[in-house]
Amino acid sequence: MPISIAYLGPTGTNTETVALAYQNWLANQTGQESILCPYPNIAQTLHSVVREEVQLAVAPVENSIQGSVAITLDTLWRLDKLQIQHALVLPVANALLSLASSLEAIQTVYSHPQALAQCQNWLEKFLPSAQLIATNSTTEALQYLDRDSTAGAIASPRASKLYKVPILASSINDYPDNCTRFWVLGLPAARNGSHISLAFSLPANVPGALVKPLQVFAQRGINLSRIESRPTKRSLGEYLFFIDLEGNINDKSTQAALSELSTHAELLKIFGNYNVLPIESLPASNP
Amino acid sequence: MPISIAYLGPTGTNTETVALAYQNWLANQTGQESILCPYPNIAQTLHSVVREEVQLAVAPVENSIQGSVAITLDTLWRLDKLQIQHALVLPVANALLSLASSLEAIQTVYSHPQALAQCQNWLEKFLPSAQLIATNSTTEALQYLDRDSTAGAIASPRASKLYKVPILASSINDYPDNCTRFWVLGLPAARNGSHISLAFSLPANVPGALVKPLQVFAQRGINLSRIESRPTKRSLGEYLFFIDLEGNINDKSTQAALSELSTHAELLKIFGNYNVLPIESLPASNP
Repeated sequence: MPISIAYLGPTGTNTETVALAYQNWLANQTGQESILCPYPNIAQTLHSVVREEVQLAVAPVENSIQGSVAITLDTLWRLDKLQIQHALVLPVANALLSLASSLEAIQTVYSHPQALAQCQNWLEKFLPSAQLIATNSTTEALQYLDRDSTAGAIASPRASKLYKVPILASSINDYPDNCTRFWVLGLPAARNGSHISLAFSLPANVPGALVKPLQVFAQRGINLSRIESRPTKRSLGEYLFFIDLEGNINDKSTQAALSELSTHAELLKIFGNYNVLPIESLPASNP
Repeated sequence: MPISIAYLGPTGTNTETVALAYQNWLANQTGQESILCPYPNIAQTLHSVVREEVQLAVAPVENSIQGSVAITLDTLWRLDKLQIQHALVLPVANALLSLASSLEAIQTVYSHPQALAQCQNWLEKFLPSAQLIATNSTTEALQYLDRDSTAGAIASPRASKLYKVPILASSINDYPDNCTRFWVLGLPAARNGSHISLAFSLPANVPGALVKPLQVFAQRGINLSRIESRPTKRSLGEYLFFIDLEGNINDKSTQAALSELSTHAELLKIFGNYNVLPIESLPASNP
């Protein structure tokens, strides 16, 4: 029986590229066949797993330029059931796609706000008077191009091939090292891997309240690869902390750290102990 | 001579409401007259101060539901010159504006992605099949309403009056305590107030590297009101940390903490020591 994997559609998004890579990895490593199911936004992608419409979902977590994908972290905290099965990191190439014959003709640029933000210096330099318009995904931006040859869209080179729209300018991201990290999420307990992700709230706004949770890890030499705060949404100035660390949950020192952490936290949620699939396991991003 | 204050326009945005409040406060407290200058996005608002087109800029920093405004933090770090003169906190009321006579008629909802995100539960419950379309500001969303009575826009009650579009549903934000914090930024050194904001990068990705900077404050009983990480944009997994703390820079204990912090940080930038203007100094949000 093939399993279903939810992703942010439509076809041509970066999330679909990662979902395709994961589908290949699953088939090659475990023999498990799967089908991909596009959803219109990230929250619905994650909800689809909890509603058991699908078995897995692929969601972006963090981009090296724009930072956290807030909706993914917030939904994960609220749903309270999802576990991270794997992580994957995708290099992101932004290109300007258009039917125009030169940059001079471009008056409007459409794309997802994250992609517009990743290219803001390039846009200010080469298209200073173009109007920038936000869309729900990089591929949604392409729908504006066929009626308007003064329009451009920032999307992936893969979308250029899929939707048969020429690339007018390549590699327009402001920083060359543009990567997005994704999580594959599902209901099975994830209890064996090299990375642990968790989040906690703190009991009160006291001086240094965050120091104790961090000391728990530092004094055991456990490396935190990331710490991110998100609002609790109860009141301005109250936060949740999302932490990624390197460790295995079956290791005694890690267990002791997590146990001590739970005494400092108001509420602690462990989202899984999983492996990061190496970039080499991703196929070429062209379809 | 009146001074100029830049803000995210057009007229009717929440940033304009705060800019108007600050304009009143300036006139009442210091006798300084000012004029407000709309800019099309937040980055250009801040650049306008460095280019000396204006003397001050008002920019959103953080929302109690959606979290940090990344472009404000990233631009502040990069520009390297701006100082926070004051902070203000605005309660944000989201309303659904439309020419439609009932919710059943609404097929499309336009708004800024932050406002759409602040109302996502309400939208899923009351308009589950409506298409959600992102715009550059809440007021830009209103331009779609006059040609289409199946469209709605999420904006403020103030925008409803300014643009003469009726409110179809009030207080549709998912969490009742919806506030946005703003900074007033300018070139003068800000060196006397109750709050300090700073950011630093860390020399290497070593276990517990963030513990020492936090201990600097904890051991002196200095309260951190916020800690936020942002990518350095050099490489996935490298971060800057933005910290807000309560203290005065002329206080010896604070000076000692900042001096010790500079020994742990790779690069430390202090964005100012400023006061938070109380909410009572804001005028009613109606024009």
